[in-house]
Amino acid sequence: MGSDQPVVDPAVTATADDIAAMQIRGAATIADAAAAALATQAERSDAATPAAFERDLRASARELYETRPTAVSLPNALRYVLRGTEGETVSALQSSTIDAAETFRAELEQAQSKLGEIGANRLRDGDVVMTHCHSTDALACIEAALESGTAVEAIVKETRPRKQGHITAQRLRELGVPVTLIVDNAARRYLDETDHVLVGADSIAADGSVINKIGTSGLAVNARERGVPVMVAAQTIKLHPDTMTGQTVAIEMREEAEVLSADERTAIDGNADEMPPLRVENPAFDVTPPRYVDAIVTERGQFPPESIVTLMRELFGETTAEPWDTT
Amino acid sequence: MGSDQPVVDPAVTATADDIAAMQIRGAATIADAAAAALATQAERSDAATPAAFERDLRASARELYETRPTAVSLPNALRYVLRGTEGETVSALQSSTIDAAETFRAELEQAQSKLGEIGANRLRDGDVVMTHCHSTDALACIEAALESGTAVEAIVKETRPRKQGHITAQRLRELGVPVTLIVDNAARRYLDETDHVLVGADSIAADGSVINKIGTSGLAVNARERGVPVMVAAQTIKLHPDTMTGQTVAIEMREEAEVLSADERTAIDGNADEMPPLRVENPAFDVTPPRYVDAIVTERGQFPPESIVTLMRELFGETTAEPWDTT
Amino acid sequence: MGSDQPVVDPAVTATADDIAAMQIRGAATIADAAAAALATQAERSDAATPAAFERDLRASARELYETRPTAVSLPNALRYVLRGTEGETVSALQSSTIDAAETFRAELEQAQSKLGEIGANRLRDGDVVMTHCHSTDALACIEAALESGTAVEAIVKETRPRKQGHITAQRLRELGVPVTLIVDNAARRYLDETDHVLVGADSIAADGSVINKIGTSGLAVNARERGVPVMVAAQTIKLHPDTMTGQTVAIEMREEAEVLSADERTAIDGNADEMPPLRVENPAFDVTPPRYVDAIVTERGQFPPESIVTLMRELFGETTAEPWDTT
Amino acid sequence: MGSDQPVVDPAVTATADDIAAMQIRGAATIADAAAAALATQAERSDAATPAAFERDLRASARELYETRPTAVSLPNALRYVLRGTEGETVSALQSSTIDAAETFRAELEQAQSKLGEIGANRLRDGDVVMTHCHSTDALACIEAALESGTAVEAIVKETRPRKQGHITAQRLRELGVPVTLIVDNAARRYLDETDHVLVGADSIAADGSVINKIGTSGLAVNARERGVPVMVAAQTIKLHPDTMTGQTVAIEMREEAEVLSADERTAIDGNADEMPPLRVENPAFDVTPPRYVDAIVTERGQFPPESIVTLMRELFGETTAEPWDTT
Amino acid sequence: MGSDQPVVDPAVTATADDIAAMQIRGAATIADAAAAALATQAERSDAATPAAFERDLRASARELYETRPTAVSLPNALRYVLRGTEGETVSALQSSTIDAAETFRAELEQAQSKLGEIGANRLRDGDVVMTHCHSTDALACIEAALESGTAVEAIVKETRPRKQGHITAQRLRELGVPVTLIVDNAARRYLDETDHVLVGADSIAADGSVINKIGTSGLAVNARERGVPVMVAAQTIKLHPDTMTGQTVAIEMREEAEVLSADERTAIDGNADEMPPLRVENPAFDVTPPRYVDAIVTERGQFPPESIVTLMRELFGETTAEPWDTT
Amino acid sequence: MGSDQPVVDPAVTATADDIAAMQIRGAATIADAAAAALATQAERSDAATPAAFERDLRASARELYETRPTAVSLPNALRYVLRGTEGETVSALQSSTIDAAETFRAELEQAQSKLGEIGANRLRDGDVVMTHCHSTDALACIEAALESGTAVEAIVKETRPRKQGHITAQRLRELGVPVTLIVDNAARRYLDETDHVLVGADSIAADGSVINKIGTSGLAVNARERGVPVMVAAQTIKLHPDTMTGQTVAIEMREEAEVLSADERTAIDGNADEMPPLRVENPAFDVTPPRYVDAIVTERGQFPPESIVTLMRELFGETTAEPWDTT
Repeated sequence: MGSDQPVVDPAVTATADDIAAMQIRGAATIADAAAAALATQAERSDAATPAAFERDLRASARELYETRPTAVSLPNALRYVLRGTEGETVSALQSSTIDAAETFRAELEQAQSKLGEIGANRLRDGDVVMTHCHSTDALACIEAALESGTAVEAIVKETRPRKQGHITAQRLRELGVPVTLIVDNAARRYLDETDHVLVGADSIAADGSVINKIGTSGLAVNARERGVPVMVAAQTIKLHPDTMTGQTVAIEMREEAEVLSADERTAIDGNADEMPPLRVENPAFDVTPPRYVDAIVTERGQFPPESIVTLMRELFGETTAEPWDTT
Repeated sequence: MGSDQPVVDPAVTATADDIAAMQIRGAATIADAAAAALATQAERSDAATPAAFERDLRASARELYETRPTAVSLPNALRYVLRGTEGETVSALQSSTIDAAETFRAELEQAQSKLGEIGANRLRDGDVVMTHCHSTDALACIEAALESGTAVEAIVKETRPRKQGHITAQRLRELGVPVTLIVDNAARRYLDETDHVLVGADSIAADGSVINKIGTSGLAVNARERGVPVMVAAQTIKLHPDTMTGQTVAIEMREEAEVLSADERTAIDGNADEMPPLRVENPAFDVTPPRYVDAIVTERGQFPPESIVTLMRELFGETTAEPWDTT
Repeated sequence: MGSDQPVVDPAVTATADDIAAMQIRGAATIADAAAAALATQAERSDAATPAAFERDLRASARELYETRPTAVSLPNALRYVLRGTEGETVSALQSSTIDAAETFRAELEQAQSKLGEIGANRLRDGDVVMTHCHSTDALACIEAALESGTAVEAIVKETRPRKQGHITAQRLRELGVPVTLIVDNAARRYLDETDHVLVGADSIAADGSVINKIGTSGLAVNARERGVPVMVAAQTIKLHPDTMTGQTVAIEMREEAEVLSADERTAIDGNADEMPPLRVENPAFDVTPPRYVDAIVTERGQFPPESIVTLMRELFGETTAEPWDTT
Repeated sequence: MGSDQPVVDPAVTATADDIAAMQIRGAATIADAAAAALATQAERSDAATPAAFERDLRASARELYETRPTAVSLPNALRYVLRGTEGETVSALQSSTIDAAETFRAELEQAQSKLGEIGANRLRDGDVVMTHCHSTDALACIEAALESGTAVEAIVKETRPRKQGHITAQRLRELGVPVTLIVDNAARRYLDETDHVLVGADSIAADGSVINKIGTSGLAVNARERGVPVMVAAQTIKLHPDTMTGQTVAIEMREEAEVLSADERTAIDGNADEMPPLRVENPAFDVTPPRYVDAIVTERGQFPPESIVTLMRELFGETTAEPWDTT
Repeated sequence: MGSDQPVVDPAVTATADDIAAMQIRGAATIADAAAAALATQAERSDAATPAAFERDLRASARELYETRPTAVSLPNALRYVLRGTEGETVSALQSSTIDAAETFRAELEQAQSKLGEIGANRLRDGDVVMTHCHSTDALACIEAALESGTAVEAIVKETRPRKQGHITAQRLRELGVPVTLIVDNAARRYLDETDHVLVGADSIAADGSVINKIGTSGLAVNARERGVPVMVAAQTIKLHPDTMTGQTVAIEMREEAEVLSADERTAIDGNADEMPPLRVENPAFDVTPPRYVDAIVTERGQFPPESIVTLMRELFGETTAEPWDTT
Repeated sequence: MGSDQPVVDPAVTATADDIAAMQIRGAATIADAAAAALATQAERSDAATPAAFERDLRASARELYETRPTAVSLPNALRYVLRGTEGETVSALQSSTIDAAETFRAELEQAQSKLGEIGANRLRDGDVVMTHCHSTDALACIEAALESGTAVEAIVKETRPRKQGHITAQRLRELGVPVTLIVDNAARRYLDETDHVLVGADSIAADGSVINKIGTSGLAVNARERGVPVMVAAQTIKLHPDTMTGQTVAIEMREEAEVLSADERTAIDGNADEMPPLRVENPAFDVTPPRYVDAIVTERGQFPPESIVTLMRELFGETTAEPWDTT
């Protein structure tokens, strides 16, 4: 029957599309958008029955979830909101869902600010911080440092292929931080002038590994070799419960065009009829082993990466099936 | 007097300009072009006296020399040709200079081929080689391997900022080598599939350090951490005699535009009136300590980097003043 | 009085003998056999009083316990069953003991299977796994991987002196895994073709050290040097509570004949009258520091070795006297 | 009004002075003295009102607290006693404060003894232990070892600038331990004869870092390089709760005279009118990263440094404002 | 014609067979036997012409050479003797060949004794030496130490698969050295009691790598991790000139039966019809990178492995074609 | 006969005493003094015969030699002068000896200045240099840097037990270098602000080891861990030819009083009747492995430590008996 077909609000689909296209990026932004999308789905629902409401909400969650398998904050956000959905009537379900989404978003905002204060405590006046990619969690640490009168400078890696370092450079300067922009290849040379490597995380695994933008692990290895501590700023929403059961985090492979424009490919290909293949590999993330990370800064305190599994167990308990997979 | 003003042939200036603009790049190519330019200078000279000829030749050498201070092959080439310049008449000077340049260029070409055979001996059938930047010395090793029936595959780092990896990718495919192109940030991840890191060198210092395209040292540190051997292919023309007396090799700082286009800067700057500075640092090279290099392959055999100073002393003896600085 | 002499069932003694002779080996097998032996002791008891029953049961436990001081699963199994022994009558004590033993054995069997699924999640299709000694926990990971469609190959170290690698090779092939058998000395060479080192554990200490078959620590050091991750598969029954109070795990020294046959000794001794001593040392286990282990996989999830103490405290609380030592 | 001025007992001031002058040193001794001082303050109080009593007690605590910012046991002791202060009358407040102080001191004494037994379990008969500075926690491990029949020898670093190694040497010999005294510079050479490095801690941070007498970190790095395990003996009173929120432990800079006597300065200065400055830097402590520490031994068991944060959270929960700062 | 068929003396063939069967083993023994065989070939020759004599001698050399491709001393010995073969008559050729072989053998014997004295200088009274495989060069160091009054003890690894450690144990005890025999897996545990790892070499490459009995590299990595220096005793006859031109040393793969007896295979195979393959890999040697070797002791002094290429160039100059390949 | 008794000039004995008492210290100063003493011996000699002159000169050399066995420059200086002693008459012998000593001293002075220029080339303007002990070779590098306009600052380790850092501090300030004086224990903390560790050497061994003031090796290990390069400034007179034949450099054990004053011992001893021994060990030097040294700067250029043996062989050839031991 037609009533079996879930109804997903166009706003949800729009959010999902934006996440997929990386118009919405950064884990907290994604989580916030996903929670907001579920709120909108709830608000605009004209489901006839509670069952239909829940079916639609789960379908919305599923659609959002499937856009970015490695964006751990996304399922955490969805899980949080769906857990808060309760009531006997469609109206009650609507308001409880909206409330849950709002609570989540409020806590999420507070989390970053609290995390920032904790991370800022690790910085001293005059320190030089090297960044990789763009992370609002990492920026929050710097912002909190500046607010408490700790002046810092930044060396910003451009972070190929998408050059998110440009965004970081822009934000840092708006905060009043002098910025030196370098290509990723120049990182080791500038580690000699660096007091902290400060990065965010896409997700954090139970074995203490940090999954973050491609290039993080190579930077961390060099930081250790140069004697520079590595700080990872990550809200607890980035802790990946699935990894407690040994799951490895799937690494998204992104499209060739980010690495090689059509013109560049044409130039390399030349008369390519008889040549062997030119493959472009564009993994979005890599995995940094815990032994190269000095501290993971969360809104609940700082932790050595080897003990993050304890926090994970405290927060999430045993992993269960995803709520949107329930029939 | 007018006769005091040295006459430098336009072809020399053109070569110097091309070297400066990196139209001519790669150490052997530069050395070859410099030797050829001196031959042209000699050939076209209408100097009235031997002294004038020598003055013009030295001025030409000086003009060429000053284009790229870190390109060690350039002074070595110039030194070689000027040492060969002898004779009592302008005509004799002309022909001896042309002869010296030709000998140099012939040996230079042979050197790469011999080096290639030696480097190829380190490769085994089915090996995967990771490259950084574009080095014809490194390519010669792969070419020699292919010629002797050893099939290899290549993982090519694009090598920001100038993406010389695109040239390497093109050349390798023309040789029949399947190529996987990656951004520099992805190197550590693909080291797990790599059997050899193979790079060239801009110059090699007496303490065993390898000066090469920015990003080499960070790659070498990660290669050691991943258990992948690092091979540096470098003709002996890259050995930097000045470093025997402790000189550090000056690292060329290149222009911002290679890293950040004008449009990109505008985007970052926004309304930049009150913001702190955005500096772009663009060093051309970095220094890899000998402990991260497994072998330096030259046309005279392979060497651990720690013993290259012995070869340097054997080939160049004690350092003397540059011949073009003689009054 | 005669009634003061504890009565130990011959089946218990038989099990104890088999454990001592390594006829029964592997921690889970030992724990299972010990629990079964206590059940048999309870079943066949003709004790006249509850006190006599408990005295006999404790004596049985003590006899079993004393066979293998380093086999941590043994006291854990005994502790579990004795904790479950309760009742006012001999009959009630019998049935509660039998129940406790059955529950323990059921959970034990489930534990390995659950652990296997968690470990399997770390493996990817086509991976090559290197094993040391014979561990059913480690095998469970491979078996679970195969069941979920992940094909793996194995490099099996023979594991002198007892060559338990032969058993592992046999079991793996029965599971359909292609096996390459090597001597222990060849391990480093084959680490270049290995994606995971996968071993079991005899016991795990509070400081994160892994006590396992002699040779494990040398393998782990080489695996780190070669960039190969080390996974330890160990049910929580292997966690050694005594080590929370700083106890080091006693390393069993086994007999010379495992290393050197009588004929071999004779050949070496020759006319040995005036020669200095030939001593043979044959430690059964060694200690791998946590920094060389990437993950400990248990049935309760995977953990960095540095945080296993938290799980230990959660499961076992504070260490107390062994129940069989109570008068 | 006069009644607004807090009254601090001269005994408190005397204790504070002794702590500041390092007459009282060693974390447990300081904590004990601080608790005792608060008991004396309570005992001798002639406060007219409960509010006045509490004001005086807080003032006493504050005076004690301000003597040594890095001596983490001091605020922990003060916090413990002030938490125990309760009652409606001055008399009740007096006795509850005295009780709390006594309980604290009793537990404190027991803690060291229990810690000693745990640490002793890591030592084997005949082991050689290298010490740095003077730590009664570390000594307690050796004393417990001796009491259980484990003979050890000690290599004692003198520990410039204050040569607390002399005290350690004296105490160890009183316990019957043969002592070899060396300058700090000789440590690496004697690590070849050392089985354990055993040190105390000034405080321990949430990221697993050990803050201890200057020179500890350099010793720990060398111990790792020489393959010698590093044991840190530290009661839980040394765990620094502030560090959970990223605070770094402030390192006390002590006076020049400990490093350079007035005569020595005069000798170096000579006719110093036109010479550049001679600065003496005398930091009291340094920070050892967790990766160079094998175990932290507390009275609650031994822990890898990476999991000490879990114990910290268990014992102290979330950090709050210091009680003596409450108005 | 029949005269085109080279005549190889049966004694040469017998020697070749013994080398192939490892009846003759150890590099110096092989070199000595090969030189002796050529002397016998010369002595017993009834060649009609100088050309026939040389043809037979080259054929003999070739037959010997082909028995063991990785035994670098073999071609060096052959090369030495053939270089000494000169004369116009068969008689002169005979005597010059015999002389060359005798000189070679005399120097060879002296070499080991001189090397022994140099190596002995690195040992101190009371030192414990760990050995791997059987090397007369390594033994010579111990023997020289004993002769000069330096007492040592030895920990002998059995060295699977062929257990050459048994020979070493026998020889050491005949010299009066107390021996502890261990399985290879126990090496890391006993490194804590070891002052030197002392091994021989099968050959040494221009890049400083040491090719020696399988298991050497794993031992060296662990020795570095435990802080124990690694000494390689190797006469200069082990320096592998081919490696100067990048050649890697071919690693002999030996037969399965050394690792797995027929009975053992049958036991593992069971009903093997449908099982995946059981492959046995038995490489004779492995490659130890120079960074894990502290000194190479030769009869011409001790050298860091990184500078052995200089000695190689001094002794052998540029590599040429093997003399037995000349037509 | 009386004429058999060698006559040693009191000035020689005085110099020998001063060397023994460390009144004369620093290798160049010792070498210079020893050469001067031999010149004085020659000058004041009233030997009746050439043989008597030589006997006296050898006796003088022997007396000087025996004062400091590890001061490698001493025998090198003596060897140099004695090699220059030639002539048929006492008068000729006198003047040739005086000439040789003068030449030696002139070259010695030039050596340090040339070495200084080479070392200075490794320093950049604004660099911070950390020193250990007092070395005029190291100071020469800084002095040359200052002379060429390169400003540096220094962190000076006091260098217990003799605090030679005070001399270094004084000299550096006289040169205009701002100095921060620290205890040796504080080194690791200040390595974060250090660009170069710069030390001298007592002697350098053929295996690349650097023998220098106790504490050097521990500093070098920490410098590597912190990413700070280590430069050793050492004239070639410090190269220890004996070590080519495996000799280890004997480490002088100095007297207790340097470490522990009589008063301090009394304080520690207390009522020492029944206490175990208090031993003080005071080794003068330690051994830094080549892998922790980045460059050895000599007056003949800079070298990786692994290739210094090549220079040693070039300069000294094969070791022979000491000339003063000739009868």
